[in-house]
Amino acid sequence: MMENNVSFKELLEKRSEIAWKQFLPSVSIDCVVFGFNDGALKVLLLKMKEQQFWSLPGGYVGKEEDVKNAAQRILFERSGAKHIFLQQFGVFAELNRSEGFFSNFDDSLWHKQRFVSLGFYALVDFTSVVPVTDDVSDVIEWRDIDNIPELMMDHRQIFDEAIITLRRQLNYKPIGYNLLPEEFTMPELQKLYEIILDKKLNRGNFYRKMVAYDILDKMDEPRKAGGAHKAPNLYKFNTEKYNAALKDGLKEGW
Amino acid sequence: MMENNVSFKELLEKRSEIAWKQFLPSVSIDCVVFGFNDGALKVLLLKMKEQQFWSLPGGYVGKEEDVKNAAQRILFERSGAKHIFLQQFGVFAELNRSEGFFSNFDDSLWHKQRFVSLGFYALVDFTSVVPVTDDVSDVIEWRDIDNIPELMMDHRQIFDEAIITLRRQLNYKPIGYNLLPEEFTMPELQKLYEIILDKKLNRGNFYRKMVAYDILDKMDEPRKAGGAHKAPNLYKFNTEKYNAALKDGLKEGW
Repeated sequence: MMENNVSFKELLEKRSEIAWKQFLPSVSIDCVVFGFNDGALKVLLLKMKEQQFWSLPGGYVGKEEDVKNAAQRILFERSGAKHIFLQQFGVFAELNRSEGFFSNFDDSLWHKQRFVSLGFYALVDFTSVVPVTDDVSDVIEWRDIDNIPELMMDHRQIFDEAIITLRRQLNYKPIGYNLLPEEFTMPELQKLYEIILDKKLNRGNFYRKMVAYDILDKMDEPRKAGGAHKAPNLYKFNTEKYNAALKDGLKEGW
Repeated sequence: MMENNVSFKELLEKRSEIAWKQFLPSVSIDCVVFGFNDGALKVLLLKMKEQQFWSLPGGYVGKEEDVKNAAQRILFERSGAKHIFLQQFGVFAELNRSEGFFSNFDDSLWHKQRFVSLGFYALVDFTSVVPVTDDVSDVIEWRDIDNIPELMMDHRQIFDEAIITLRRQLNYKPIGYNLLPEEFTMPELQKLYEIILDKKLNRGNFYRKMVAYDILDKMDEPRKAGGAHKAPNLYKFNTEKYNAALKDGLKEGW
């Protein structure tokens, strides 16, 4: 709010000067941050000042900074979350991917250079994240994956590939573990799988397969239920068995 | 051979000058090129002059060159093969990945800068490839994946991740199509799957699953067999059906 009287252009030009000294040229990072809440898969999007389109949180790599650390840092700055599950999944490098967006800027602007962007997807515990804007953005919020606004540059393509990757990696990355709270019900787990796979699953089959994988521990106490409903059983991942199973990949198709 | 009297150091220094003008900083490409021949999966490796360790073919991205085109160009220069099936599969960016290798060179050497390397795997028709050395290498050859010599820098890690990727993508990328000759026998296809999956498969089950996928066309003429052996049936991929099936992923585990 402090800098509301400074234009986006001036802010970016100020950032550019520092960036030329601080960051590795030609390499950028774009993050697709997923959170699961209230039966819906959400993605963290922001809107830069004076801009029409939304964007994925992103940034650059310090000259002496590990690439994965850079992605963790970028997400920490925006969400306060540490030790986020992060997975690099693609490279976005079309020649003119940022053309248009920076056309009103001088060619010497850092952000106007050519960048090969490394796509990371991140899985976060929705409840532990407090999205924060920075000096060049004025909105950051969770959006349902079925309700994504128009995104700048190639960010829609990056988002789409992240979803496809999530689907393909569901059987060998700890995706459920990182998106669900520690304890969850079987219908909650099934709902997450249905959203990622984009199809309805049979409840009995899902339950049987999950039990057969032997990767869940059933809690002694069910969740406290309100009213006339039966209290649902709670589960948590047995991380040792889960990680061992993921190493070979969960064999069943869904 | 022409430049055998020029040292590796001098050659690299000459290359460095051109590279600073020609290429995008901080981004490199390393390729894991697979070919299938005589029942064995092979990978293309080279040895630079005066070097102890082997390396993957690699290079850099032109300032105005698309990243995928750069990978195609690099492979064409080394193998004469065009329209190679290429898949980006990982980013190799450890801070000091090239430290040691260029320690005897001046810090201004292009190759001594920090590079984030994009890993591509390539699938080529073994018979159509003629590996060629360039001015800084004196050996390039196919090596059986079970017999890989010691590799420079992080190239062993890049190779290992390429194999893991191949295994995971076997059900949704046209891997068999790109590695086998146009016509092949069922045992040849099974052998390729066994090598990539690193396990023996039951012959009857493999045949049944492959037939059930309905992605192969059986040729009218069997392969001409010598001696007392029965002539084996020949198949080829029905590319239309194959591509449609890969889009959803082949559902069966192996």
